[in-house]
Amino acid sequence: MSQRHYFEDFEVGATDEYGQYAVTREEVIEFASRFDPQPFHLSEEAGQATHFGGLCASGWHTGAMAMRMIVDHMPAGGTGALGSPGLEELRWRKPVYPGDMLKMRSTVVDRRESRSRPELGLVVMENQVLNQHDEVVMSFRPTVMYRRRPA
Amino acid sequence: MSQRHYFEDFEVGATDEYGQYAVTREEVIEFASRFDPQPFHLSEEAGQATHFGGLCASGWHTGAMAMRMIVDHMPAGGTGALGSPGLEELRWRKPVYPGDMLKMRSTVVDRRESRSRPELGLVVMENQVLNQHDEVVMSFRPTVMYRRRPA
Repeated sequence: MSQRHYFEDFEVGATDEYGQYAVTREEVIEFASRFDPQPFHLSEEAGQATHFGGLCASGWHTGAMAMRMIVDHMPAGGTGALGSPGLEELRWRKPVYPGDMLKMRSTVVDRRESRSRPELGLVVMENQVLNQHDEVVMSFRPTVMYRRRPA
Repeated sequence: MSQRHYFEDFEVGATDEYGQYAVTREEVIEFASRFDPQPFHLSEEAGQATHFGGLCASGWHTGAMAMRMIVDHMPAGGTGALGSPGLEELRWRKPVYPGDMLKMRSTVVDRRESRSRPELGLVVMENQVLNQHDEVVMSFRPTVMYRRRPA
């Protein structure tokens, strides 16, 4: 499953685990300072005062870390991925803390040819981000556009 | 509507426009290099070869820019926002290009008391990110947790 270049390479039900992303305190604070400067994303003390129990990553940062694992898992060079029109049911299920090691679990849940663009197909994935305790910390269901395999 | 500290301050149907975020080429490429290194997020030439028509921001970057506008719009200091369990129907509707100036439009679409945590309330927003042509480039429907107003 590591060579999915084209729409035709995705089979409904196929599951794949991949990636590793080490969450660092430095990156959590840097991302939050720029994009999500809420206290519990900026300091240990402020995080401890909330139900998060400590400094935790911005949810958009966790999404960005997931995206990096997804892109790193794409075939080098000739990938047929052409972006995403959107996603459903994004859930931030558990806090992501500095020191966590994240990985991805992706399952193909649907696929269909594009009506408006016959050169494209749409693949729906159920993506889970897991931590080192195998807990799902985030999940989302993106639709991804892929090129059709050349005839 | 600029002083919404607590759950009780949100009324269904209330709409608010706020924020400005200048999208820069430097930040688009920096974010993508780190989190979403697909060719069309890294170079003008690669973007022109796709339906995006040019270098465009990672969708996770657009979400992060939206989050920054949201946080900047929260009341300083005493905000009662306590994070989000997730969101529905995220759509990346149009490409976001360097040079764009983004803003937010947020409407309260639902609110309810938390069953499991009586000190919290849940507010559902319909958030739109607009560009300088008043085109919606991204939309999403987050649920946000707020503290109840102290009695």
